[in-house]
Amino acid sequence: MSHAPVAVDAMGGDRAPHAVVEGVVRAARLGVPVLLVGDETILGRMLPRDLKIPILHAPDAVAMGESPAVAVRKKAASSIRLTMRAVAEGQAGAALSCGNTGAAMAAALLELGRIPGVERPAITTVVPRTDGGKLVILDLGANVDCRPSHLGQFAVMGHLFARHVLGIADPSVGILSNGEESGKGNELVRAAVPFLESAPIRFVGHVEPTAAFRGAVDVLVCDGFVGNVMLKSVEATVEVVGSLLKEEILRHQPAKLGAWLLKGAFRRYRKRTEYAAIGGAQLLGVNGVVIVGHGRADAEAVASAIRLAHHSAQEGLSTRIAQSLQKEADSSG
Amino acid sequence: MSHAPVAVDAMGGDRAPHAVVEGVVRAARLGVPVLLVGDETILGRMLPRDLKIPILHAPDAVAMGESPAVAVRKKAASSIRLTMRAVAEGQAGAALSCGNTGAAMAAALLELGRIPGVERPAITTVVPRTDGGKLVILDLGANVDCRPSHLGQFAVMGHLFARHVLGIADPSVGILSNGEESGKGNELVRAAVPFLESAPIRFVGHVEPTAAFRGAVDVLVCDGFVGNVMLKSVEATVEVVGSLLKEEILRHQPAKLGAWLLKGAFRRYRKRTEYAAIGGAQLLGVNGVVIVGHGRADAEAVASAIRLAHHSAQEGLSTRIAQSLQKEADSSG
Repeated sequence: MSHAPVAVDAMGGDRAPHAVVEGVVRAARLGVPVLLVGDETILGRMLPRDLKIPILHAPDAVAMGESPAVAVRKKAASSIRLTMRAVAEGQAGAALSCGNTGAAMAAALLELGRIPGVERPAITTVVPRTDGGKLVILDLGANVDCRPSHLGQFAVMGHLFARHVLGIADPSVGILSNGEESGKGNELVRAAVPFLESAPIRFVGHVEPTAAFRGAVDVLVCDGFVGNVMLKSVEATVEVVGSLLKEEILRHQPAKLGAWLLKGAFRRYRKRTEYAAIGGAQLLGVNGVVIVGHGRADAEAVASAIRLAHHSAQEGLSTRIAQSLQKEADSSG
Repeated sequence: MSHAPVAVDAMGGDRAPHAVVEGVVRAARLGVPVLLVGDETILGRMLPRDLKIPILHAPDAVAMGESPAVAVRKKAASSIRLTMRAVAEGQAGAALSCGNTGAAMAAALLELGRIPGVERPAITTVVPRTDGGKLVILDLGANVDCRPSHLGQFAVMGHLFARHVLGIADPSVGILSNGEESGKGNELVRAAVPFLESAPIRFVGHVEPTAAFRGAVDVLVCDGFVGNVMLKSVEATVEVVGSLLKEEILRHQPAKLGAWLLKGAFRRYRKRTEYAAIGGAQLLGVNGVVIVGHGRADAEAVASAIRLAHHSAQEGLSTRIAQSLQKEADSSG
């Protein structure tokens, strides 16, 4: 199992197939087993002669302009469907696509289904905190309307992800709120608290965004609408901040020289914030390890998403989620 | 009316009363009429001899540790209550407090009440966009659980604010969503759309955070829970980004020199992002002009919040909201 390859949808993403193939090559050279899924004629020509990367031929692909949900349902032989199917049929240990998140979720549900006991799968990602730690956030948009029990399950899945994929021994879990007092939050948050309190996790209560980014928690749970708006606000702010700073720097001569001297620092900073935004998102709760890379992912981002996928598969994340939710169901039933 | 002073709660805010008094002095020297509300013995000693700033004595104040809602209700002679009362009784044209937002809202509702026809007042602020424009966002936390009709009223109030306070002739209004397609959004967003469509505003549909910050709309409407999380995420990101950049800059010698040369640019950048976050929030829908400054506001932020308050009062914002909602009620009734 630990040497099962990561199936990679070569046709998904703004820079597909080139950036994806380049990322696959990088990962393969680092020793991560991969299975490339897409048009075998096109892909065969793109691979270097000295590397043996298996290709799973997919005669079809979901195009940019199509409605993801409709296209995925219709095109059973599309690269994204076959990528997920490779996991379902045991040819691969994990799946990666840099295509549309909705399409990936639809394909994963069609080919892999949900883990028994999971009410709703969730989209999960990791962002850097100011204290140097990492923050796991879910759901980021799979479920715009949640029931309180869904948030309880997100907490369990986020806890297992933090523990087994990030290696945090006893991760703290908080619920995203507009204030720290226990009476705060909207109706959904207040109703979800009892579910998080009774879950087999270290629940620390209500958390505001600022505290979460400073390191108050390892895992932050929210409904998919709020999570999606939050993540996109973070991305937008990184952009606004960058453009304001650039404007101020270009305004004066000594600042321009300073900017030239700072080039390296800015490049490293961009890399770190880019990784915050474009590192892979993981679909937790589907019956297999599925990573959705950012649509704008370059070769390096693709390679690091492949490593994340491989690591999650080796840790048996799906099995652990199934066991944990089964145990909970047994104890409460 | 245009020369009615701005009543300023001298006792609200992390740096009160010093930063507040300093800000009041700055505004007064610029010719903005002010009325200082607080302990007259303390405040009298702090004012410069050459300026005649009237003081309205408030024997009591809401303290830092108190529950704002309870304290405001109990302490009828607190500076925040008397600041609002000065507007209610016509001694002042607008009110400013840098205390707790919840306390300010409670005090405003007790002393001023709602504008007839307004179902729920909203907290509104302005943030900079990457295209150089300004983005009005509401609600930012007054209402964590909203009905669809509330969002329709927020849209009307935000439109009037953008038009009369910011001087945007025909502001565009969008509803915050997780995607731009009309089927996107959570249950509340989808149910609110018809209210925004029928409101006397230029409604442009669903808007994602990134598009909003880039200039897609002038006014962004959302429920108070989502708005609060969004604003705090933006603030947190500005902080994370700053600390990451600092870390990278301090890592290498040439970068340190570059940073020294960039000092001015960084200072101007901080000022601009600080203003994004700490400019005053306006309580729209209460029966009078009320601004809540950021708790960390310094003298300059206080002075600019006073100018905003004065300008809103001169534009008769409350009256315009009352007229617009009345007209709508007449036409729909």
